[in-house]
Amino acid sequence: MSAVVWWLVTVVMVTVHSASAGVVELNWEVEYKLRWPDCKEGIVIAINGEFPGPTIDATAGDTVIIHVTNKLSTEGVVIHWHGIRQNGTPWADGAAGVTQCPINPGETFTYNFMVDKAGTHFYHGHYGMQRSAGLYGMMIVRSPKETLQYDGEFNLLLSDWWHQGSHAQELYLSSRPMRWIGEPQSLLINGRGQFNCSLAAYFNKGGVKECKFKDNDECAPTILRVEPLKVYRLRIASTTALASLNLAVEVRTPTRTLEVVEADGNYVAPFTVNDIDMYSGETYSVLLRTHNPTPSRKYWISVGVRGRKPNTTQALTVLHYADAPEYEHLPYPPPVTPRWDDYDRSKSFSMKIFAAKGYPPPPEKSDEQLFLLNTQNLMDKYTKWAINNVSLSVPATPYIGTIRYGLKTLNYQKPPGKEIVEDYDITKPPVNPNTTKGNGIYSFQLGRVVDVILQNSNVLNGRGSEIHPWHLHGHDFWVLGYGEGKFRLGVDEKTYNLNNPPLRNTVALYPYGWTALRFVTDNPGVWFFHCHIEPHLHMGMGVVFAEGVDQIAKMNIPNAVLGCGSTREFLMNRGRH
Amino acid sequence: MSAVVWWLVTVVMVTVHSASAGVVELNWEVEYKLRWPDCKEGIVIAINGEFPGPTIDATAGDTVIIHVTNKLSTEGVVIHWHGIRQNGTPWADGAAGVTQCPINPGETFTYNFMVDKAGTHFYHGHYGMQRSAGLYGMMIVRSPKETLQYDGEFNLLLSDWWHQGSHAQELYLSSRPMRWIGEPQSLLINGRGQFNCSLAAYFNKGGVKECKFKDNDECAPTILRVEPLKVYRLRIASTTALASLNLAVEVRTPTRTLEVVEADGNYVAPFTVNDIDMYSGETYSVLLRTHNPTPSRKYWISVGVRGRKPNTTQALTVLHYADAPEYEHLPYPPPVTPRWDDYDRSKSFSMKIFAAKGYPPPPEKSDEQLFLLNTQNLMDKYTKWAINNVSLSVPATPYIGTIRYGLKTLNYQKPPGKEIVEDYDITKPPVNPNTTKGNGIYSFQLGRVVDVILQNSNVLNGRGSEIHPWHLHGHDFWVLGYGEGKFRLGVDEKTYNLNNPPLRNTVALYPYGWTALRFVTDNPGVWFFHCHIEPHLHMGMGVVFAEGVDQIAKMNIPNAVLGCGSTREFLMNRGRH
Repeated sequence: MSAVVWWLVTVVMVTVHSASAGVVELNWEVEYKLRWPDCKEGIVIAINGEFPGPTIDATAGDTVIIHVTNKLSTEGVVIHWHGIRQNGTPWADGAAGVTQCPINPGETFTYNFMVDKAGTHFYHGHYGMQRSAGLYGMMIVRSPKETLQYDGEFNLLLSDWWHQGSHAQELYLSSRPMRWIGEPQSLLINGRGQFNCSLAAYFNKGGVKECKFKDNDECAPTILRVEPLKVYRLRIASTTALASLNLAVEVRTPTRTLEVVEADGNYVAPFTVNDIDMYSGETYSVLLRTHNPTPSRKYWISVGVRGRKPNTTQALTVLHYADAPEYEHLPYPPPVTPRWDDYDRSKSFSMKIFAAKGYPPPPEKSDEQLFLLNTQNLMDKYTKWAINNVSLSVPATPYIGTIRYGLKTLNYQKPPGKEIVEDYDITKPPVNPNTTKGNGIYSFQLGRVVDVILQNSNVLNGRGSEIHPWHLHGHDFWVLGYGEGKFRLGVDEKTYNLNNPPLRNTVALYPYGWTALRFVTDNPGVWFFHCHIEPHLHMGMGVVFAEGVDQIAKMNIPNAVLGCGSTREFLMNRGRH
Repeated sequence: MSAVVWWLVTVVMVTVHSASAGVVELNWEVEYKLRWPDCKEGIVIAINGEFPGPTIDATAGDTVIIHVTNKLSTEGVVIHWHGIRQNGTPWADGAAGVTQCPINPGETFTYNFMVDKAGTHFYHGHYGMQRSAGLYGMMIVRSPKETLQYDGEFNLLLSDWWHQGSHAQELYLSSRPMRWIGEPQSLLINGRGQFNCSLAAYFNKGGVKECKFKDNDECAPTILRVEPLKVYRLRIASTTALASLNLAVEVRTPTRTLEVVEADGNYVAPFTVNDIDMYSGETYSVLLRTHNPTPSRKYWISVGVRGRKPNTTQALTVLHYADAPEYEHLPYPPPVTPRWDDYDRSKSFSMKIFAAKGYPPPPEKSDEQLFLLNTQNLMDKYTKWAINNVSLSVPATPYIGTIRYGLKTLNYQKPPGKEIVEDYDITKPPVNPNTTKGNGIYSFQLGRVVDVILQNSNVLNGRGSEIHPWHLHGHDFWVLGYGEGKFRLGVDEKTYNLNNPPLRNTVALYPYGWTALRFVTDNPGVWFFHCHIEPHLHMGMGVVFAEGVDQIAKMNIPNAVLGCGSTREFLMNRGRH
């Protein structure tokens, strides 16, 4: 038998409970720690010494109060509560430069917001590339009246990991010429991966080597220990910096094993699969129905890269039926996730997702149509990503404060018309002569129905188009449709699903295609909308929506979020005599 | 002939001038850059793309105005003007947490101060371990009536360099158990060194290998191009993170070549040597008198490690006489700097330094005597350095602001009496049962004559005592004397040099010994006094002096330095209705 004895490591199974407490209050210290995320030592940002950070467990209607103390030496920090809409508390959204100033080293800032709706969420750093450094964790908001039936649940937080530190990565991406950071060294499940080795190496003796670690090592996998004939809710979130993923469960029975029931905190019409695609920023709940294997045994769960030519070993963990032998090898090799460039399969998965019954349809018509052309560009020999020819450079003063105090005339982006898409040949290498850096914002009045059409295009070398998972803060949106090539105005709108489109906060834009989404401007605040790939955002791939500027100007925004840049200067000086 | 063709690289010789401009105004952008400091790629903090940063060239009486824009991604930054006393502008001293808040990313802060006195100085980061990351440069303040006679000058800024980045170093030092960062990989002269190779490798074919680089590579050495029979002023500063150094010039004539004339911005009684010791934080001017070699040739300058068992190749550069052949090997091997543990030689050098004629002697008597016992300690299994049993933890709110606005009762350290030294066995491993972290300060009234006795002791493993170069901000002090073992109260004072002690801002504390210094509290402000070894300071080896607390409370301190912590909170909220 192999010396690899990792079977004992388990995750504590969280049982379903209905918390009655109205307040979840936590004290967090954020600091760098030495850890072994993939059996190789690396530096992570930990919370209270934990990597990934502690799981937040709240119930819809709860107030969440988190006192974040920054124990980094010289760096600011913020935390974004990904999927929480922050109705009435836009300053608690945790996006540096947009909704708040970074928390300075040695200081404590209190996030205080209500979680109004049940769902599977996560949180992560939103300053520089601190998410790549490991600042993330799960955030579960339970329903006091859960309609899903299940016997137990597991959280699976997926991420990717580089051996090069995030500071160096930032510098490489910002260098002239840009130096690409390459594919991740490892994929992590709950912060645990195995670099350059495989738990299943015994199936291919000549290939990747066997992993060496002990049961309680930091890189030993999270084992999912299950009973036969039960239903488990897997809450899965992807906080990858770069990788699009597929999670596949080994199947040895004729039935499909995973029933997708929730996406980004919204119930979806259930459908069954054996694997799911996960783009960075997305969350899913799937119900896993165990059968009754005789004799009891173990099954693989694989996580592999999609959408980019992978150079990273599949992450593996194990579904371990009770009474299965602890130290016995699995009988079959792990499932191989789909080919990275099988985009039809990816789209097919996306198009299986519809809102669950009972969700009202979106408004029938939109008031505004915003085209967002996604391009990769060279600017002054720096490589950038631009939206409508503008590469976002987040300012030192958070937009929410600049607007609140009318400190200067903000540069409001004039939304370009359909020409931006119509005049652009997305199949050719990018030609954007007017491309520039900017920090302008798109402004919307309250109560508007806005359609956003994300349009993809060719990359700099002219030989491809990348997947971009776009994430909107402060909102869920309806995904109205996906299409190939350029969006055809007046034509493609007719293909929109206005019947039962899913509500999401993150959606994929596929290569050379378009994605259309709709939302209602019902949440006064300033909301980031950006590609959730961390290097892409670092290189300018985002826009900012100001919603209800007049309302923001009257908001009682805590000074604590405005202690930088011109808001700090203004507020510190107004008390002078 | 060797393929090593580095001889052409020169430093532009700065000729002596008497600037008449009263203002030196500069715009600086601070950002990370990829560089090759020792022929191996590394990440440095550059200023306007330069590493080391630009040399400031001012004249005594000038006002220096430097607009520092922080272009780091997530880190704050400050710059300390090492050797400038900041009379009347204590908030411009650039010590994070003491005299100002860090400058946030994306923001610009203006340092504005007068350079009241001629001297050779430098500047450097004073937040976290940003000095280790390469944030430093020379600062020359010229005398409008220079009494020294010389024909030309060169600046030599000495530093040490690690391949491990400064963020990782900070984490290692703060880890439990502490992980030591080890000796530097390279020594740099003006930011240029050669890792794991030697310019003089042809003298020992079997040993270290020959360096491979081109004339214009970033790691090609600064060549000192000289004419025969001239006098050159070498302005030398050490901004090492760790290493104590010796700089030696190859001598092939019976005369000594270096005349020491200035130390830390003060003229000293001239004395001649062939090599000088340099502790981190010190500066010297030496006059180098060239002879007339026939035929014309080149001579070595060596820089080697002192005070710690070295594991770093000597840094080398060349004194290149005009008409010497560009690409010819030097005829003799470079001088070998003195044995690292020849402390008698080190002390002997220190004791050669006296004030130049014309400097008034120090006050005859002191009003206060402050003992500072230096110990290495284990606290809760963290390794720390402590002074009088307190390991300094710099607060988030700068002391100067806390005092100015009386925001809370500061923890004023009660200066321990002589017992702290008398009761302590410095020859044994440390026994400091009451050792703790703290952020208290020592407070002095204005106009007091203060003696500080630095007392060294044994380190944790009980097998040694380290050199600590102590640097005082805001002041020059007189070095009254050095001694072996424990300071004997009432006895050792009698050995003080009260006649012509040198004025310094940095002084070495030797292993198992004591160093006594005297200064006058004539500069209202809050002044850092700390070991200039960056890892030691990071581990708590410093104290803070508040001078003239009543005066500070009336100062018109710019809000811009107080935009963090409780001062920010106070100043932002006082304007509320």
